[in-house]
Amino acid sequence: AREAARVLQYGPTEGFPPLREFLASLMEGRGLSVAADQVLTLNGSQQGLDAIAKLLIDPGALVLVEEPTYVGALQAFRPYQPRFIGLPMDDEGLDLSALEQVLRSGEQPRFLYLVSCFQNPTGITLSPERKRALLEVAAKYRLPIVEDDPYGELYYEGTRPPILAAMDAEQYGELRHVVYLSTFSKLLAPGLRVGWVAAPKELFGKLVHVKQGLDLHTGSLSQAVAYEACRDGLLERHVPKIRMSYHARRDAMIASFERFMPRGVTWTRPMGGMFIWLTLPAHVDATTLLQASLEQKVAFVPGGAFYANGGGSNTMRLNFSHSTPERIAEGVSRLARSIAELL
Amino acid sequence: AREAARVLQYGPTEGFPPLREFLASLMEGRGLSVAADQVLTLNGSQQGLDAIAKLLIDPGALVLVEEPTYVGALQAFRPYQPRFIGLPMDDEGLDLSALEQVLRSGEQPRFLYLVSCFQNPTGITLSPERKRALLEVAAKYRLPIVEDDPYGELYYEGTRPPILAAMDAEQYGELRHVVYLSTFSKLLAPGLRVGWVAAPKELFGKLVHVKQGLDLHTGSLSQAVAYEACRDGLLERHVPKIRMSYHARRDAMIASFERFMPRGVTWTRPMGGMFIWLTLPAHVDATTLLQASLEQKVAFVPGGAFYANGGGSNTMRLNFSHSTPERIAEGVSRLARSIAELL
Repeated sequence: AREAARVLQYGPTEGFPPLREFLASLMEGRGLSVAADQVLTLNGSQQGLDAIAKLLIDPGALVLVEEPTYVGALQAFRPYQPRFIGLPMDDEGLDLSALEQVLRSGEQPRFLYLVSCFQNPTGITLSPERKRALLEVAAKYRLPIVEDDPYGELYYEGTRPPILAAMDAEQYGELRHVVYLSTFSKLLAPGLRVGWVAAPKELFGKLVHVKQGLDLHTGSLSQAVAYEACRDGLLERHVPKIRMSYHARRDAMIASFERFMPRGVTWTRPMGGMFIWLTLPAHVDATTLLQASLEQKVAFVPGGAFYANGGGSNTMRLNFSHSTPERIAEGVSRLARSIAELL
Repeated sequence: AREAARVLQYGPTEGFPPLREFLASLMEGRGLSVAADQVLTLNGSQQGLDAIAKLLIDPGALVLVEEPTYVGALQAFRPYQPRFIGLPMDDEGLDLSALEQVLRSGEQPRFLYLVSCFQNPTGITLSPERKRALLEVAAKYRLPIVEDDPYGELYYEGTRPPILAAMDAEQYGELRHVVYLSTFSKLLAPGLRVGWVAAPKELFGKLVHVKQGLDLHTGSLSQAVAYEACRDGLLERHVPKIRMSYHARRDAMIASFERFMPRGVTWTRPMGGMFIWLTLPAHVDATTLLQASLEQKVAFVPGGAFYANGGGSNTMRLNFSHSTPERIAEGVSRLARSIAELL
């Protein structure tokens, strides 16, 4: 009611001004100092992936991604017809020697895309040391990094993982190599479709121009609702609750895996986020498994879709944030039976 | 409150189901029979222009537009690197002989984009006869038409102009040549960013796929707000009021032109919408005029930006929907003085 005119009329492409101010302070809390005028609000961070792709990808241009990577990023990038190289990961995230090998070969990737904390789909977090080393590689080869961080606040052990953007801005006094994307979708409500991007100065104005062509601006009502909720302290009250709830659900899923899964099945042990990545014996096809599993009313996402260039047919993504620990235990036990029947 | 879960959670890419049902009935009122499952909601119809461009334009592909045309469409299309041909218009809209000349030459345009009712920027409406003839040309040459209709409900004389999409669907029993875009931005509130597209079946699924890559879906809260407002009868109460108000403002602007404008200045006489198009003597540059005019606190949009391939330096778009008749009269008198000084 207080903001009726601003919320109903056309607004600035850059975003609802009070929300941009809030987002700058929120990122400050994540260690990233950027001014509000370097923050652009988006219809969810997904829109940022499209905008960045539109700006940086020409047909045939090389884009580096993790293998596996977020399927929505592949979907956003593919219409711009890049070539992808998928870089392998270990428990600490991206394999930097594989990255350097590509860069030393003379390839000039437009950017490296990654989910730096509790990755979708694997749940893996790039370790702080690996992050620092990655930024050195980025500086050496002038490699732009698109850091997608929807899940970082959902940590269940210790503290929030650091973000690449904060390290980058700290070193250079401003964002230099990293375009940072984040969202309210995992903290407040995905139905609002409010995300944001902070970008180096030379990219920021271009991103705003692209956003204007996309849809003029993000819905003012949604932005105002997100802002009012934040101003009212909802994040501080709500996020610890979902952290506690998801933590218990993660523990339930890992415990159920240990109890029920047949030999030869392995999984990641995420310190946060929403997903666990399961690897089946090489000859078991996750899509075939899904059909059997759905008959038992257990769903998951076969892993192949998360591979930029094919592969991963024996992998799968499981979500633990949605169901109660009891249902998770029951679901995992059914899934384990379905797997056992295919071995 | 009634729809909290649906409004806050992820929703279907196609749109909020009750709103899609309502939109089908709203288009039925415009003479267009399409099922709700052929309606995709958008972040304003602007997003539809981007989605269609992404689907249909490759670098170098030909796109036909009106000359002048909506600048936001050019901005949405340009990143996909089309060639544009701008087709001339007269008082009844697009010059069909110019269109046929292009098509007969063997060119295969990806589509023709037009604003069919009270065009932005000229206010011109394609006459019903011209619309029927255009659809015949489209059928003959298999030319897809992107019909943008944000203003059609804002008619100040007689009845609402017919839409191409309705004629197309009536003739073939379904949409065949026309992709139809519309929006709540001019009827309820642009800050909601809720528009929609209805498309032929073979395009519809592809548009949904593109939209998913763009931002997963349109904000559920905004869609629900638009739906509740419509269900509550707000359009029936509100639109007649803005029609009456804008009608008086249009009349005030035309009357002020007749009273104040120097010889050699001509203008369109729109039957609806929000804009009047002014043509200055050929040697007067509208951008130069704007600088002088802004000193008198009168703003307008120089016409050059509405030309796909340059030109129109002596043209300008005026908006009459925003100011009171008194302010319009004062503004036009100041503008006329600024023009006179440049003659």
